[in-house]
Amino acid sequence: MMSFNDRLLQIIDDKNSLLCVGLDTVLERIPAKIRNEPEPLFAFNKAIIDATIEYAAAYKLNSAFYEAHGAAGWQAMQKTFAYLPDDVIKIADAKRGDIGNTAALYARAFFDQLQADALTVNPYLGSDAVQPFLQNPEKGVFLLCLTSNPGSRDIQYFSDGQQLLYEKIAALINTWNSSNNCGLVAGATHPDELLKIRARAPQLPFLIPGIGAQGGDLLNSVLNGTDANGSNALFNSSRAILYASSGDDFARAARKEAEKTRLQLNEAREIKRKKTEH
Amino acid sequence: MMSFNDRLLQIIDDKNSLLCVGLDTVLERIPAKIRNEPEPLFAFNKAIIDATIEYAAAYKLNSAFYEAHGAAGWQAMQKTFAYLPDDVIKIADAKRGDIGNTAALYARAFFDQLQADALTVNPYLGSDAVQPFLQNPEKGVFLLCLTSNPGSRDIQYFSDGQQLLYEKIAALINTWNSSNNCGLVAGATHPDELLKIRARAPQLPFLIPGIGAQGGDLLNSVLNGTDANGSNALFNSSRAILYASSGDDFARAARKEAEKTRLQLNEAREIKRKKTEH
Repeated sequence: MMSFNDRLLQIIDDKNSLLCVGLDTVLERIPAKIRNEPEPLFAFNKAIIDATIEYAAAYKLNSAFYEAHGAAGWQAMQKTFAYLPDDVIKIADAKRGDIGNTAALYARAFFDQLQADALTVNPYLGSDAVQPFLQNPEKGVFLLCLTSNPGSRDIQYFSDGQQLLYEKIAALINTWNSSNNCGLVAGATHPDELLKIRARAPQLPFLIPGIGAQGGDLLNSVLNGTDANGSNALFNSSRAILYASSGDDFARAARKEAEKTRLQLNEAREIKRKKTEH
Repeated sequence: MMSFNDRLLQIIDDKNSLLCVGLDTVLERIPAKIRNEPEPLFAFNKAIIDATIEYAAAYKLNSAFYEAHGAAGWQAMQKTFAYLPDDVIKIADAKRGDIGNTAALYARAFFDQLQADALTVNPYLGSDAVQPFLQNPEKGVFLLCLTSNPGSRDIQYFSDGQQLLYEKIAALINTWNSSNNCGLVAGATHPDELLKIRARAPQLPFLIPGIGAQGGDLLNSVLNGTDANGSNALFNSSRAILYASSGDDFARAARKEAEKTRLQLNEAREIKRKKTEH
């Protein structure tokens, strides 16, 4: 049995990729040909997965996009997780968080029901609310540390004069990793802050959204967000890949975009490696 | 059209109750007779609602209890919201929170799809992540301020030397109430802190979990958590009501427990009124 964090490193190596494809699937943006199928969300996801699987180390489903369709959306999420092969990391981006006994039920929903490998969790409720998610070393938890939106400054930059809240939380999460299945979320829109977060959690996997449509700084996020070996981070791109074309060639366009993004990420790793050597 | 916060005050008055019944329904704890029905979660909720409706101002469904059952659980949640009458407040306790465009999808899931009147939201992502939930003045948002669990101290008590994070967040939430549909969550396990939170948000509705099975201090939570008129707060009890009896008399036992809890809450309000007069 391999811990989640070890498996993540292995998959990044095997696939030579830091790319996470975000399946933020919006019905209105699915090309007409597929939109009229009986299960359009799943049909679109299937086509995107088939087109990009060569380049992706991970896929991330943001649950909001599915919950907006009620029970049918939940089913599309379940089918998509079931369709993903075992040599990629399957992330449920649901940003859950609740007190002890309730957190255990969310763990059941995402790890057992939906068979996700990892879940994003909001740390605001504190350690006893996070522990139930960490019980199974094979299942990973990415805790929100510094989010990619402008409002991240409202609360996450609260300071005690020594450190900002997101820095404190990075250090705290680092102490929660006793089963080697704990990671954190930090946005590519904050490349400088990524360096401070990496200093506080040198060996945790990072899930880094915000490259692609959100305009985050890919090069500096790789330089600052990966570990000492230029690994241990997943960079998520959603819209830029999913909607690379709105026509019938969407799958081919998604494939090209995924290939390009993986290459950009690997070029940035190469730059980091050369810097480290000198 | 009445704003959510005005409607909440109206319902508390009309029903002469601060009681919120938490439908944290666990399959294993449903009496055998109902557990074997085709839709046991909904059947149990229906029986509890019928038994307690006279005493409750609000019902709260914690979504984790339903998501643990996948799409079928989602359907049970939907049916329960549809079954609740319009003269009570229907709260989805889902503790969601995500960046702008995604938050709007969660709002759609809970306000449009499930027809909840209000949703609990985690404020950690900041104001632009909360705004999409506040667009419709008829739909309320209860933001997590100080949670009822022991781990609440890990992050929520972070201090800048002047104030603790939960105090800062209470003051911040108070500035988000321009459509009069914003409230906050603070646990009855922290009765002293409720006074500080109320001082920072004198006119917001509070959702106060932790009385009942969690052992929060009912009297002091009412004294400190209600507004100047002894109103504008909902006190949630879940397990103590739902599982008052594990036998076939569960509905009658739930009714008695709800009646008792409403009375205790009203007696506490009476004590506050008398204190204020002198």
